[in-house]
Amino acid sequence: MDGVYVVGVGFTKIDRLFERSARDLFAEAMAKAIEDAGGLKPNALVVGNMTSSVLMEQDSLGALMADYSGLRGVPAFKVEAACGSGGAAFYTGYAIAKSGLAEVVAVGGVEKLTEMPTESVTKALAQAADADYELIHGISFTGLNAMVMRLYMNKYGYMYEDFAHWPVRMHEYGSFNPYAQLRNRVTIEQVVKSQVIADPIKLLDCSPIGDGAAVVLLVRGEERAREVVSSIGRDVLIEVAGVGLATDSVDIASRRSLLTLDSVKLAAQQAYSMAGVNSRIIDYVEVHDAFSITGYVSLESLGFSDEGKSVKEWMEGRFAKGSKPEVNFSGGLKARGHPVGATGVYQVAEVVMQLRGDFPGYRASDPEVGLTQNIGGVGTISSVIVLRRRR
Amino acid sequence: MDGVYVVGVGFTKIDRLFERSARDLFAEAMAKAIEDAGGLKPNALVVGNMTSSVLMEQDSLGALMADYSGLRGVPAFKVEAACGSGGAAFYTGYAIAKSGLAEVVAVGGVEKLTEMPTESVTKALAQAADADYELIHGISFTGLNAMVMRLYMNKYGYMYEDFAHWPVRMHEYGSFNPYAQLRNRVTIEQVVKSQVIADPIKLLDCSPIGDGAAVVLLVRGEERAREVVSSIGRDVLIEVAGVGLATDSVDIASRRSLLTLDSVKLAAQQAYSMAGVNSRIIDYVEVHDAFSITGYVSLESLGFSDEGKSVKEWMEGRFAKGSKPEVNFSGGLKARGHPVGATGVYQVAEVVMQLRGDFPGYRASDPEVGLTQNIGGVGTISSVIVLRRRR
Repeated sequence: MDGVYVVGVGFTKIDRLFERSARDLFAEAMAKAIEDAGGLKPNALVVGNMTSSVLMEQDSLGALMADYSGLRGVPAFKVEAACGSGGAAFYTGYAIAKSGLAEVVAVGGVEKLTEMPTESVTKALAQAADADYELIHGISFTGLNAMVMRLYMNKYGYMYEDFAHWPVRMHEYGSFNPYAQLRNRVTIEQVVKSQVIADPIKLLDCSPIGDGAAVVLLVRGEERAREVVSSIGRDVLIEVAGVGLATDSVDIASRRSLLTLDSVKLAAQQAYSMAGVNSRIIDYVEVHDAFSITGYVSLESLGFSDEGKSVKEWMEGRFAKGSKPEVNFSGGLKARGHPVGATGVYQVAEVVMQLRGDFPGYRASDPEVGLTQNIGGVGTISSVIVLRRRR
Repeated sequence: MDGVYVVGVGFTKIDRLFERSARDLFAEAMAKAIEDAGGLKPNALVVGNMTSSVLMEQDSLGALMADYSGLRGVPAFKVEAACGSGGAAFYTGYAIAKSGLAEVVAVGGVEKLTEMPTESVTKALAQAADADYELIHGISFTGLNAMVMRLYMNKYGYMYEDFAHWPVRMHEYGSFNPYAQLRNRVTIEQVVKSQVIADPIKLLDCSPIGDGAAVVLLVRGEERAREVVSSIGRDVLIEVAGVGLATDSVDIASRRSLLTLDSVKLAAQQAYSMAGVNSRIIDYVEVHDAFSITGYVSLESLGFSDEGKSVKEWMEGRFAKGSKPEVNFSGGLKARGHPVGATGVYQVAEVVMQLRGDFPGYRASDPEVGLTQNIGGVGTISSVIVLRRRR
């Protein structure tokens, strides 16, 4: 069967963009992706987004983004899977391209969080959890993740300080990325002294609230993909070698385990098996570090570390430049930012650019096989995508 | 290439089900669909829904419905395209089945509208329109459709009474359908004397607010489909012969035309061309009559009548039993009900049952080729699905 290829990527800087609307941001990302693919125009669009219904009072988001991107008429709809919406949108776009329903499929993500008061945003983001069995008790999304971190600390005997190496490294990488929301560097001391949000999670463990949009373009068939990339003088092809998508219960009380995320494990198994690889083959990774604990648990659930080991390995310098894999040189959700439904699409765009060698920030060591992992809820839904460079 | 087949369908009665939650309704529809397919268990799920984020404060809807239907772990997410969410979910499920990403794909729709005050529901449904350019002026979704009806009346010289034949016939059909929300019959006089909602649209032109869930199961490949249906002693196969999905601007002021819906025309062209049929071949149809005017405009945009003619033809008895095509024997959105994101899935399930000859209400005249048409917004997004019976 014909493979599916990423032939164009585009995204906006992530920031508190008070003066720009979601449609404006999305159109910018789409225009960049189309330009990156030598002018190739999509004939289908899938939009990942979580909060437009609540924070923008806007449904029909797919059609709206299509129209404002100059694509009026194409099949277009929104995919919602909480913070994992971008990855689920990619899975959907892959299926549409692979099925032959559309020749050029755009997968986009957009989120506009900063027009509303922080309380409204916190409440909207908590809708990732179970409304009837969790939110009704008054817990926030950070609160749910705080329970995971506390459990991890208790089970494996870590101190709070041990986790602080994650944000320090992410801010360092973010300082190189012109599209990142947070470009300042931070020290262990600053992380440790930052405000408690939901004990033991502190402010500098959290990804920031920001606006942004990202788009990637997919085509089916090596010949068609080569035609597109060679038309713009590029000599590498980026193949979608594997895709995985899996879910778990929404309420975390029903889970088999909170420290190994079953949805991540399942999605990774699917993607690895489809790509014919295992975790040892992966050169470069973008993981979903909505909080420091989420980053560590993700690395373990993907099979890069044993459970309880990633924090120690990270402290010793693993996953940095020269490691296998190298992780989150974009700055991750922590520093690049986390425009919720767009995040999974940013990750794909960033890994594509690392594989092509034209990422505009901190560069990976000439990776050939890359991976993205995007989560919705506390591991309620996870997508894993394996991308492979071909000459 | 292998075709895609509908091998199981299930749905709940539509009603004001105050004592039942969305997850409860969805699990019932799923259990019925699985039973209808002889116990076949899906390994992917797409959920069409519009208002869960606003009215239920619940995102992660795909994973939630998967878990409560006994499918924890499967790829699952929500598709939103306003009132056209069900049709867009079907398009997505078709792509997943056709691409080979999953072997048995469930497409579901669910909506839970009746727990909230009517004002909240009216506001939530209006989010189908453009928040920045339409809703901000205070117009409701019924108000937007009222402008279309007024334009149609003025352009083609119809009186209000002429449109009233739609709801009369729908209520008659609904009286035969045990799953319909409205099973009472109404007269022209009752329609004409019903309360004005947004002039010229009156109460009995409007589809009701209700709760419901529907699920259909898809498999790829004739051999696999035959295996499933023969295991339960059924001798007909229902093939998805064509699928079309198209969009238009969200705000109606930007449209080329308000009386012929371009998104319906485009989606129909795609579906007809894929199925190798034209509108004259279609035996049976379920159209999206959110309001009486929407039903007429839909029939015209699908090519069954010329623009401005369907109201007259309907009055003369066309589209009833013995016509080609026969239309909305379920009772349509008007009487079967319109649990928004589930409607497009109900339509598919109903047409499948008409083709199989086991629809539990008013029966079509042994149709071989059926069609569903589902709209989001005032024609912002439309899906058209052509289903064909094979022995």
